[in-house]
Amino acid sequence: MEFIINKESLNQAIVDVSKAVSSKTPFPILTGIKMSVDENGVILIGSNSDIIIEKYIPLMRDGKQMIQVQSEGSVVVPAKFLSEIVKKMPDDLHIKVNHKNVVTIQSREIITNINGLNSEEYPNLPVFNGEGHIRMVGSKLFDTIKRTAFAASQNEMKPILTGVNMSFSPNKLVCAATNSHRLALCEQPIESNLQCSVVIPRFSLNELIKLSEFESSVIDLYITDNYFIVKSEATTLYSRLIEGAYPHIAGLIPKDGKTKIILNTNQFLQGIDRACLFANEWRNNNVHLSIEGEKLKISSNASEIGKIEETQAIISMDGLNELSISLDGRFLMDALKAISDEEIKISFGGTMKPILIEPVGNSAQLHLISPVRSY
Amino acid sequence: MEFIINKESLNQAIVDVSKAVSSKTPFPILTGIKMSVDENGVILIGSNSDIIIEKYIPLMRDGKQMIQVQSEGSVVVPAKFLSEIVKKMPDDLHIKVNHKNVVTIQSREIITNINGLNSEEYPNLPVFNGEGHIRMVGSKLFDTIKRTAFAASQNEMKPILTGVNMSFSPNKLVCAATNSHRLALCEQPIESNLQCSVVIPRFSLNELIKLSEFESSVIDLYITDNYFIVKSEATTLYSRLIEGAYPHIAGLIPKDGKTKIILNTNQFLQGIDRACLFANEWRNNNVHLSIEGEKLKISSNASEIGKIEETQAIISMDGLNELSISLDGRFLMDALKAISDEEIKISFGGTMKPILIEPVGNSAQLHLISPVRSY
Repeated sequence: MEFIINKESLNQAIVDVSKAVSSKTPFPILTGIKMSVDENGVILIGSNSDIIIEKYIPLMRDGKQMIQVQSEGSVVVPAKFLSEIVKKMPDDLHIKVNHKNVVTIQSREIITNINGLNSEEYPNLPVFNGEGHIRMVGSKLFDTIKRTAFAASQNEMKPILTGVNMSFSPNKLVCAATNSHRLALCEQPIESNLQCSVVIPRFSLNELIKLSEFESSVIDLYITDNYFIVKSEATTLYSRLIEGAYPHIAGLIPKDGKTKIILNTNQFLQGIDRACLFANEWRNNNVHLSIEGEKLKISSNASEIGKIEETQAIISMDGLNELSISLDGRFLMDALKAISDEEIKISFGGTMKPILIEPVGNSAQLHLISPVRSY
Repeated sequence: MEFIINKESLNQAIVDVSKAVSSKTPFPILTGIKMSVDENGVILIGSNSDIIIEKYIPLMRDGKQMIQVQSEGSVVVPAKFLSEIVKKMPDDLHIKVNHKNVVTIQSREIITNINGLNSEEYPNLPVFNGEGHIRMVGSKLFDTIKRTAFAASQNEMKPILTGVNMSFSPNKLVCAATNSHRLALCEQPIESNLQCSVVIPRFSLNELIKLSEFESSVIDLYITDNYFIVKSEATTLYSRLIEGAYPHIAGLIPKDGKTKIILNTNQFLQGIDRACLFANEWRNNNVHLSIEGEKLKISSNASEIGKIEETQAIISMDGLNELSISLDGRFLMDALKAISDEEIKISFGGTMKPILIEPVGNSAQLHLISPVRSY
C-alpha cells in the first residue's frame, strides 16, 4: 500500500471516524483506524461495540486531485497516533506500509514510522442490501434526535430505555425517549412507506449528530434486522439496534390538564436555571412551581445555603387557578432547551401527576415530566 | 448594609476576586468573598493562603452611576453562590444584609437569600505604607512573568524553587525561575532605585497575569517584608513571599558553547511538538537532537509504537559541526513558547552540558535546559 494524500482531507476524515474509536475497548484492533486504498480512493473505518463510522475520500474533489495511488492495500493504525501525527504534519502526506505493517508517513523532511496491525484482523462491515430504505433531509433527522435523545436513560439496568425509539409508519417518523421519569416525543413527516419500530442507542445518535456532513445533505437511512445505517456521499454510520420491546408510550400522554398556562420559553428556562443553583442539594434537584394570583412562582431552597424565589408573568391561563408541584429542575432545563419555539404551553394534572410541556404552535413535539416528592 | 449596584460591574469584580478563592481551604470563611460598602463604593476581597485580591467599585464610572448606597456595612458571602447568582440575574441588583448575616439579592421579581458569615471573622488585609515602591507599565511585568514563571518547580520539596526570583537593582529588574533541570531568565529596564531580591510563588504570578486590568495600566508595585503587592486604580493583589535564599544563578550560565546554531523559532517548536508525540513513553520525554551535514535532526522513538525523525534547515552555524544530545521535549516546548522573536540561537557545550537558548537580537531573555540520559 502506498499513496500520497492531501493533508486536510485525510485529517478531517480521521477526526470523523475517530468519533467511533474508544481507547477503552478490550479489543486492541479496535483502538486503531482501518485505512484502505484502492483505485477509487481511500476508505477509513473506526468502530466500537455500538457504532461503526466509514469515511470515503475520493481521488478528486472539486476538480482537485486529493490522492495519488501508487499501490493498493490496507492496514490498521493506532487512532491516537495517526490523528496527532497527521494534524501536526505541514503538508501533503506520503503514506506507505511494509510487509510487517509498519506505516511510514512522510511530509517534506519529516518521516514517522508507526507500528500498525494486520487489517485482516479488523472486523468486517455489516452487509446490507438496500432494505428498509428512507431518504430524508439530514437536518430533519438531526432535529428529531436533538429533541428526544437527551431524555433516554443513562442507567444500564433497563437497556431498552438507554435507546431512542424510532417508529416509522407511512409518511411519518415518531421518535421517543424516556428514562421512566420523563419522556420526550417528536413527530416528523417523511416520504416513505416503511413500517417498523427500532431502538437505537442514545450514544450512537449523539455521535451521529456530531457528523456535520450529514446535517447539510440528503441522507439515506437503512433499517436492517440488526443495524440502523445512515449514509451520505462520503460517510456511512452503522449503529447496532437495542433488542427488545419498547414500552407503549402513547397511553402515557395525559389528555386533559386541570391547569394550562402559556409562558415565554426563554424566560422560564432562565428562571429554572437560577432555581437549580439551590436545587443541587436535593437528590432530584427539586424546583417548586406554584401559581400566586396571576403569576407563576418558581422557588427552591437549600437549608444550609439559602433560597431563591421569583415570579414570572403568565401569558395566558386556562382552567383552575391553582398549582403546587415539585419537579426535577434538570429535567425541566433539558426539555426547555430542546424547544426552539418562543412560547410553551404547560398542562398540569395535579400535584402527583406528570406535567406536559408543548411548544405553542408546534404539535409535533412534547415533553412529559413526573413530579418529585418535596419532603 | 444595603445598596443597589449595576450587575455587570459587580459581576466583573466577583470574577476577578474569585481567582483568589479556593473551595478547598480549611477555613470556611475563606470560601467566601468579603463585600463591604461605604460612602466611597463597594470593596470585594477574596483570598487564600498565597494571595489576596481586592477590588474596588466606585459609585460613579464614566459619568454613570454604578452604586446607590442606602446603608454601609459588610458581610462575607459564599463565593460560588454569589458568583453564580449574580451572573444569572437579569438586571441591577438590590443587595441587603440583615442582623443574622442573611444576604438578600433582588433583581426585578427575583429574590434570593444566601446565608452569609460575619465579616469580622475575615482576616485583615496586610498593612503597608508605601515602602519599596516601583511604578511600571503593567505589560512589562506581564512579559517578564510569562517568560519565566513556567520554569519554576512544581515540587514542594524545595519550596524556594516553586517561586520566581525578582531581583531589583537600580533601573533593572531580573526575573529568574528554575526547577534545577531548566532555568528561565529575563531582564527588564525599569525606573527605580530599589535594591532588593524576593521570591514570589509561581501560583500567585499565574493568577496575577489573569487580571487583565493590570496589563493595560500603569501599576504600582510595593515590596514589603512579607508581601509583594501590585496595585492599579481599582485592583490590588497581595502575594506572600517565599522565605529563604534563592540559588545564585548567574554562575550557571555557560559562557562559551562549542557549537552555536541559529534556527527559526516556530519551525523548531513545531518539530519538537511532533517529536514529543513519541517521547511521552520516556520518563523525561526524551527528544534527541543531532547535526547531520548542514541540517539539524530531531528524533524520538517509542519502541512499542513507532518513531519519528525530521531534518530542519540551520540558518547559520558557528563552531564544531558535531552534536548529539537528548533533552526533555516538554522543557524545550515551554522555553520556545516563551520566546516571541522569530529566530533563536542555541549554544551546545557537549552531550552532558546544559544547552542555552536565546532569542536572536534580544539579549534580555535566556533559557537553560539540562540534557537527559538517553538510555
